[in-house]
This record gives sequence, structure tokens and C-alpha cells, in this order.
Amino acid sequence: MAGAIDFYFDFSSPYGYFASMHIDALARDLDRSVSWHPILLGPMFKITGSAPLTQIPLKGAYSRHDMRRTARLHGIPFREPAPFPISTVTAARIMLHAQDAWPDRAIPFAKQVLHAYYVDNVNVGDAEHALRIAEESGMNIDELRPAIASDALRMRLRAENEAAVARGVFGSPFIIIDEEPFWGFDRLDMIRRWAAESGLPG
Amino acid sequence: MAGAIDFYFDFSSPYGYFASMHIDALARDLDRSVSWHPILLGPMFKITGSAPLTQIPLKGAYSRHDMRRTARLHGIPFREPAPFPISTVTAARIMLHAQDAWPDRAIPFAKQVLHAYYVDNVNVGDAEHALRIAEESGMNIDELRPAIASDALRMRLRAENEAAVARGVFGSPFIIIDEEPFWGFDRLDMIRRWAAESGLPG
Repeated sequence: MAGAIDFYFDFSSPYGYFASMHIDALARDLDRSVSWHPILLGPMFKITGSAPLTQIPLKGAYSRHDMRRTARLHGIPFREPAPFPISTVTAARIMLHAQDAWPDRAIPFAKQVLHAYYVDNVNVGDAEHALRIAEESGMNIDELRPAIASDALRMRLRAENEAAVARGVFGSPFIIIDEEPFWGFDRLDMIRRWAAESGLPG
Repeated sequence: MAGAIDFYFDFSSPYGYFASMHIDALARDLDRSVSWHPILLGPMFKITGSAPLTQIPLKGAYSRHDMRRTARLHGIPFREPAPFPISTVTAARIMLHAQDAWPDRAIPFAKQVLHAYYVDNVNVGDAEHALRIAEESGMNIDELRPAIASDALRMRLRAENEAAVARGVFGSPFIIIDEEPFWGFDRLDMIRRWAAESGLPG
């Protein structure tokens, strides 16, 4: 099997959620695994001078309409999240810790967090909600509580985010395959086109 | 035939150029005509707090790569334009004047300007280059010279741009079909999907 697909997403990115619903099918078609990377858009927006989509004049109204339309056209369950955006620091830290401590639990946790936020409108920015989902995902919550408050995990998330920026990541979803970067949910079709041109499976 | 597809583009937008190469096929599939609207991104960027793509940290490098890749994957002739971006005031004014004075010349002019800039690397921001293309497109240049310097056409372009903003337009390409807005070249596939869902031809 060729190298993994690097899938970067912020839990507070609706288009990242949409991509999470299609990434497994894409990986299957390309005969690859997926490496999930939770990122924080905040520090990236500082670099690019951007802001949460819904807060930008004109783009805000468009993006709210487009999110609902995109979900509908792709058959993805979706309720407009509120509050939006939320802090995703806790969810990201839990996922990073899980990738080391309970690797088989990390992706199911991410999927449950996304489902809770974008379908059930649970505020997963609330640490207690994030921890409850972690527990339901089979993680040891007594180990997790001190871990997510630790300097080690705080620095780890910051380093992961900086490593993403160093690879050119500035948005969510952001997908890198063999160093080829793709930004945005609407680029999944392009990835298949690019793969075909490159002679890859898919 | 149903209402026209409204196609908004800035001559200095590579993705607007890409869309211009596909818009006729899309219109044919949807059994519609196309109404071309030259816009100026500058005033829109002031509203959204945006900037020319290539000048944004991280996004700049990505977008330059993505433009070349998009052109290649879609078989669209393209040389990275330089200088970039350029002022497109003159080209937009010529097109607006032509839409009144010589309506059958307006779209061929737009296509020739885009080809000159994105294939032959002619700086169409230079008024003399824009006027030469107008002349080659069969326009009366002795009428055009005073017109493009007139307050009337200056105000007309400003009003057209403000009308676009009032409809929610903030980028290029921007396509509106039956009041449904679509931003970006990579949304042309979505338009077909949306049309199918809406029971339209296509």
C-alpha cells in the first residue's frame, strides 16, 4: 500500500466534517490508509489574515447557505451548528493523546465528536462534552483529564499545528497525498482526476 | 428558454478565466443563455477583508500551484500571468460599453482579453492593449476612447459592481442561476448536481 493520505481538519469546520464523511471512500479507491490530523484554524487564520467563514461579510451568508446545500446534495446528515465557531482545543488534544495511547480509538472518537456537533448540535467545545464522548469511545477518562491539561499535550498540539503550517496547510479540510496539496471539500473530485492523471489507483 | 445564467468575473481572476472556458458548455446543458458581468474584485475585497490570492501567505503558494494544476487537469491553455494582478478597469468599461453599443462584440472581446492575458501573457491592464483587442473585436475605437474616459461609464461600472455586491457576489467566478449562488470554478460540477436535484435540464 502506498503512503497514507494526510487528512487535516478542524473540528469546528463544517467542510472538514463533510470531508470526514467521504475520506474513507476516497482512501479505499486510492488503496491507501488515512492519517487524521486535528488542527486549529485560529493560528492559521492569523497567518493568512482570514476569519471564520460565517463572520465574513457577504461570504458569511453564502457559506451558511452553501453548507446546507452541500450536505443536502451529498446526502450528509447536517444541522447548522450553534454555537459556531467553537474552541476545538480539547477535542484536538484528546485525539492526539489517543493516537499514542489508544490508537484504534482515535478516529472513532473524531467521528463521534463530528457527529455530535454537526448532527446532534452538542457543543463539543465544552470540555465535559468532549470527555464524555472520549469515554463513550472507550478511552480511560482518569488518564485523559490530567493529560489534556498538561503542558506536554499543549505543546504537542502547537507543534503539530506548526508542522502542518510548514507543509503549507492553511484551511480545513486540507488533504495531502504524496506531497500534493488539496484544500477544500469541493476538491475531492479533483483528487480523483489528479490520481487518474498520475496513474494512481482510483 | 429559462432565465440566463449570470456569470460574474474579474479579468484578473485566473479561476474566472477557467470558468469562462466552461460556461458555454454548462449553459448548453442547462438550455440557457449566459449573461456576462465584468466585475472589479478590489472593492469586494475591501468588504470581505480579502486580497489577491497570490499575495496571501500560504494561500499564495498553494493557489499558484493549483492554477497550473487546474488548467492542466481540465485541458485549458494557461501561462501564469505576469504582472499579476492587474487593473481591469479599462477592459471592464470597454465590455460594458460594448454590451450597449455592439452587443454581439462584447463576449468575443472578453474571450480575446482573457486569452491574451492567460495564454499570450499580454498585459491587458494596459489600456492600449485593451483598446487594440477591442479594435480587433470589431469595435469602433474612435467612439471607445472618449467613452472609457467618461464619467458616465465610470459611474456605470461602479453601479454594476455595487449591484453585484447587493446580490451577494464577492469573488470570481461567481455564477447565479435562478437566484442560486455558486462561487468558484470548482463549483461547476456542483451546479450540474444542483440542477439535477432541482429538476432542471443538465
